[in-house]
Amino acid sequence: MQTPDLSPDPSNPTPRSVAVLAGGIGGARFIRGLLHYLAVSEPGTEVTVIANTGDDIRLFGLQICPDLDSIMYTLGGGISEERGWGREGETFTIKDELAAYGAPPTWFGLGDRDTATHLVRTQMLSAGYPLSAVTEALCARWQPGVRLIPMSDDRVETHVVIDADEPGTKQAIHFQEWWIRHRAAVHAHEFVLIGAEDAKPAPGVIDAIRNADIVLLPPSNPVVSIGTILQIPGIREALRQTSAPVVGLSPIVGGAPVRGMADACLEAIGVATSAEAVARHYGARVASVPAGADGGGILDGWLVHDDTDSAAIANLTPLGITTRAVPLLMTDVDATAQMASAAMDLAREIMAART
Amino acid sequence: MQTPDLSPDPSNPTPRSVAVLAGGIGGARFIRGLLHYLAVSEPGTEVTVIANTGDDIRLFGLQICPDLDSIMYTLGGGISEERGWGREGETFTIKDELAAYGAPPTWFGLGDRDTATHLVRTQMLSAGYPLSAVTEALCARWQPGVRLIPMSDDRVETHVVIDADEPGTKQAIHFQEWWIRHRAAVHAHEFVLIGAEDAKPAPGVIDAIRNADIVLLPPSNPVVSIGTILQIPGIREALRQTSAPVVGLSPIVGGAPVRGMADACLEAIGVATSAEAVARHYGARVASVPAGADGGGILDGWLVHDDTDSAAIANLTPLGITTRAVPLLMTDVDATAQMASAAMDLAREIMAART
Repeated sequence: MQTPDLSPDPSNPTPRSVAVLAGGIGGARFIRGLLHYLAVSEPGTEVTVIANTGDDIRLFGLQICPDLDSIMYTLGGGISEERGWGREGETFTIKDELAAYGAPPTWFGLGDRDTATHLVRTQMLSAGYPLSAVTEALCARWQPGVRLIPMSDDRVETHVVIDADEPGTKQAIHFQEWWIRHRAAVHAHEFVLIGAEDAKPAPGVIDAIRNADIVLLPPSNPVVSIGTILQIPGIREALRQTSAPVVGLSPIVGGAPVRGMADACLEAIGVATSAEAVARHYGARVASVPAGADGGGILDGWLVHDDTDSAAIANLTPLGITTRAVPLLMTDVDATAQMASAAMDLAREIMAART
Repeated sequence: MQTPDLSPDPSNPTPRSVAVLAGGIGGARFIRGLLHYLAVSEPGTEVTVIANTGDDIRLFGLQICPDLDSIMYTLGGGISEERGWGREGETFTIKDELAAYGAPPTWFGLGDRDTATHLVRTQMLSAGYPLSAVTEALCARWQPGVRLIPMSDDRVETHVVIDADEPGTKQAIHFQEWWIRHRAAVHAHEFVLIGAEDAKPAPGVIDAIRNADIVLLPPSNPVVSIGTILQIPGIREALRQTSAPVVGLSPIVGGAPVRGMADACLEAIGVATSAEAVARHYGARVASVPAGADGGGILDGWLVHDDTDSAAIANLTPLGITTRAVPLLMTDVDATAQMASAAMDLAREIMAART
């Protein structure tokens, strides 16, 4: 086992650009650790974050982008550390008022501070600006320290197929309703990314992957966060073709998600809740190995939690996924920076092995 | 001088329906007093309020209807008594957040509670419901005790022509910008109700005036509240043709507006700031008297503040506007109920004189 520290290996080249595919809370926290590591050890490295927008939902006429906001607030110092989502010092006056009007739905935690973000976004979208330009405008306030890009400017939405009330029939509900209202406790038959076929990657997404020195997959949800990003036509291909090593971090530790309800999502797509199964699902990038997921694998390297998941090393490495075991609990920024350091080291190791 | 009390004259018929044309704060307070009077003395009387929507403005993507909301909140018990507008216990988190994003304008007092109302309204409008239906839906919560109808379902907006920066040129700004940002202190050349020509009265407006037993004009702004309502094609004609007596209450007491900045509005249209001049501007309904305003006069009766404005009685009555002087300061609900009582008495007196 490799014990990562915050100093890069001087024998390896220093990357100048890192691309990260990310979901919401877990992705945001990982990137915060990554930035902490880079600021100390590799200053000047540019980070581009390609964020999942499949969770986006229009409620009360507001276009809400939970993952973009989680990343923006977390990196900009505005996140509620306690909840992990939404704004610090948030109030819920509007939510209560909407309930008093009987305006559905009542299960969504619409914060007052958050609403201002949604208002600015919705107004700019209505004026014709693409989501990527809107996100850039919002980031002018938050200064997240990364270039934050939605995976697509096209509106796509993850819906979840569940049993309907009438026996033998099914219905689709928005991911947020399944996630928040039902707490992912209703059996999901399938996730459908509505609008995916016709969606294009947002400007800069493909270039960020192509031109990156390293691509990282944080311990985000492999199904409804990273998996959703991979459904935008062109993104998986870019990941398979980039010269940068692609290194992921397992969101599953000891057979359970570190946070969130990734197990329910994995179950729906028939993937076991284990660090090894998630890596197999992502698949190895090497062409000689059958694709672990539709369209070909994307991983060069994989980090699993040490002790609990070290057995994956021997199983995955022969498949072409160089696997290491390190502590993967994002207990604080320093611990997370150590994880980022380990991911960067593994990427450099993979690069060095190629030459 | 007639001293009103809260008991109706038993020799006069009890009206069953009252129509009120109203602006925001002043109109709302008058109607609250009217309802108080009716509940005590003439229970069962139905009140229809036709509200000005020329103040409406779309800000931050929200459709804001200040006068409808002032009436709804005042009659529904949700108004801030201290400010006179907006919600009791209001907070301004969103306003601060929008300012932090640099989203203009910053001069509008967008409250958090209020925003929920705007969100419900905007969402319903976007879904295709007319403003009158939206207002009815919002009133299902507030139970204002009146039928509240916007003057029109069509979007009309009062703009104010002011001097532009370049000498000799003019520009038009939204009424709210003139009223709130400039506090009506910038000289207004003209008020233009954009969209007025093509606007139709909302469903129920003309019938409410036609079928009313009494029509009341509260001490609302005669230019940008009542005057705006009169610009919707068909409303002035309905007022001139209804069999109900039309009785107004002067918003000017002793040469100054009781509240608000009606003097600046009157100055712009060349009308003196006096109780008598406002009545002459409204004009007498009797056909034999030349119209005081474009399209013909609308008043049968007029209440002025006693002592300060009693001289108007002798000047206006010969014109066909039966004028009485009573206390016209809405210091509390009881005082306002007395004003409403006096207006109802005057209406009955006018009805009785006809037969």
